Amino acid sequence: MSIRITGTGSYLPCTIEKNEDFYNHEFLNADGSSINNCNKVIIEKFKAITGIEERRYIKDELLNSDIAFFAAEKAIEDAKISKEDIDYIIVAHNYGDIKHNTEQSDTVPSIASRVKHLLKIKNPKCVAYDILFGCPGWIEGVIQANAFIVSGIAKRCLVVGSETLSRVIDRHDRDSMIYSDGAGAIIIEETSDEGGIIAHETATFTLDEAHFIYFGKTNHPESKDQRKYIKMYGRKIYEFALTNVPLALKSCLEKTDISINDVKKILIHQANEKMDEAIVKRFYKLHNMEMPEGVMPMTIGLLGNSSVATVPTLYDMILKGQLEDQHINKGDIIIFASVGAGMNINAIIYKH
Amino acid sequence: MSIRITGTGSYLPCTIEKNEDFYNHEFLNADGSSINNCNKVIIEKFKAITGIEERRYIKDELLNSDIAFFAAEKAIEDAKISKEDIDYIIVAHNYGDIKHNTEQSDTVPSIASRVKHLLKIKNPKCVAYDILFGCPGWIEGVIQANAFIVSGIAKRCLVVGSETLSRVIDRHDRDSMIYSDGAGAIIIEETSDEGGIIAHETATFTLDEAHFIYFGKTNHPESKDQRKYIKMYGRKIYEFALTNVPLALKSCLEKTDISINDVKKILIHQANEKMDEAIVKRFYKLHNMEMPEGVMPMTIGLLGNSSVATVPTLYDMILKGQLEDQHINKGDIIIFASVGAGMNINAIIYKH
Repeated sequence: MSIRITGTGSYLPCTIEKNEDFYNHEFLNADGSSINNCNKVIIEKFKAITGIEERRYIKDELLNSDIAFFAAEKAIEDAKISKEDIDYIIVAHNYGDIKHNTEQSDTVPSIASRVKHLLKIKNPKCVAYDILFGCPGWIEGVIQANAFIVSGIAKRCLVVGSETLSRVIDRHDRDSMIYSDGAGAIIIEETSDEGGIIAHETATFTLDEAHFIYFGKTNHPESKDQRKYIKMYGRKIYEFALTNVPLALKSCLEKTDISINDVKKILIHQANEKMDEAIVKRFYKLHNMEMPEGVMPMTIGLLGNSSVATVPTLYDMILKGQLEDQHINKGDIIIFASVGAGMNINAIIYKH
Repeated sequence: MSIRITGTGSYLPCTIEKNEDFYNHEFLNADGSSINNCNKVIIEKFKAITGIEERRYIKDELLNSDIAFFAAEKAIEDAKISKEDIDYIIVAHNYGDIKHNTEQSDTVPSIASRVKHLLKIKNPKCVAYDILFGCPGWIEGVIQANAFIVSGIAKRCLVVGSETLSRVIDRHDRDSMIYSDGAGAIIIEETSDEGGIIAHETATFTLDEAHFIYFGKTNHPESKDQRKYIKMYGRKIYEFALTNVPLALKSCLEKTDISINDVKKILIHQANEKMDEAIVKRFYKLHNMEMPEGVMPMTIGLLGNSSVATVPTLYDMILKGQLEDQHINKGDIIIFASVGAGMNINAIIYKH
């Protein structure tokens, strides 16, 4: 018996927001002071650090639950199952449904209930709930689905990661250029095949780290805008992630008898290209190795950081042959990993 | 081996809002039309149906995560465990942290991360996440904790239900009188005792029911207020609950070899006294029995409907001897049950 992903799907929003589209934004420091650079330089520096050239936003008339549904529908089709045979719908997000040009999050009913409604699933035994766990929410949803299957209360789960960060960004904050919208979904189930989930690991750091990513006011000091936006202490997060994520990956791998040489791909939450590279390099360095070329496929350049959606979207795109020179073959060992608000870190060792 | 609740705690907010405090509210129908009754009559009718005389609101300076922490702290103390030995912190809520006189929900970091931070827990292996599942969220959190323990990824979990509905009520809506604030928490763990969780059941109805409880505009037709408030189709919910909850309880009990005669208490989510009575009466009627006196302890009269918090608060108050003529003794069979936004229904058969 193994617990395997049997279908994947993702949704890439239609609106492409290029770095050039930020040329006219008035960027300010967190303390409201101006930045001693023109936007062209700010954006070039931003690109050099994050790797982001463009990002995707959903259309004004759509909601987070709509794109969660789009991705879910594709994963169900890909798994060739009946939607009525799903035992759990787990949706990871952080901000719920926020309508264009409004500020309130709508989470009642849950996004999972909305997805189930849009899928027109009749079976009341299909339990739909949301998990809030920062960017690592989708991986944590997979870990929870795994626990439900192991414990015998589910056989087949739909796990969706969906976020519309375009609805919570402060246009006076350079970090606003990082964030993106997107949705990815999988079907995970008990199968007679070998492989699947081999080990997993999760950690929540809150003593000093709880508020590294938070909801805060605009950087504009004279603004009367009382609205809160997604905010982060980038430097602190960088240091935190670089210290703790490689150790978590190592610890997770040590739960198995798999050698690091057999790891084919690391699908890591795409928060920031340079940070992700530094994390994975350090993970290999802990094993006295250089990071192998091509081990860490990236889509952040064109898709930005869509929070919970980056990992399932990346996985789906590779499996569907949409990433040049990136393939995952039967039997390949891959690591799913994430770090984000909470602060949470998690990882799964998975045999495809 | 059994999975048992080994500690409980709850927090009752200090501000008591009596029915008389609503005398000057301008209540309107959902379509904005006026109600052909004076407030005194409206409030008397409200009291007759819901049983609610007063409800509790948190102080202006507090947040949902603060009261979740207060309840959690008491449960940990009651269980006589080290907080560093908790494997999971699961917080059920629906609206996150909403500051007094603001409208945005703050859920980044998760409420569970905030609770862990306030508890000053150092252990990063203690995983903290939020579940959104309507009013049945706390019971569902217990079911998830049970699954984690059964599957071997946890030994001891803190499960909190905490909500501040006072921050999402429309003062032009009679239903605003239903809602309350509160928090309840438990420690649940693997023990060598017998008893504990014997069976559980969950259902999510979304085909027609997903939006029975929703976020909607004020009833005031001329208001420029664009803010959304908790809203419900009371009649539809009543019919839905009366049809489906007794069947779910029966189905859950049938998973065990326990006779209905051995059920000592039914701790049901306190949404509305008349509805709860009708549900439990029908559950007994399905077994050709009358509802035994005292089987359904209630606190709604003085505490209102605090969503996810009603069941754990009630349980804690009974165990602490705070409810007249209500006791739970070692070996007693109790049923935890809930119905709410999603629409979700769940139940646990538990041997104390």
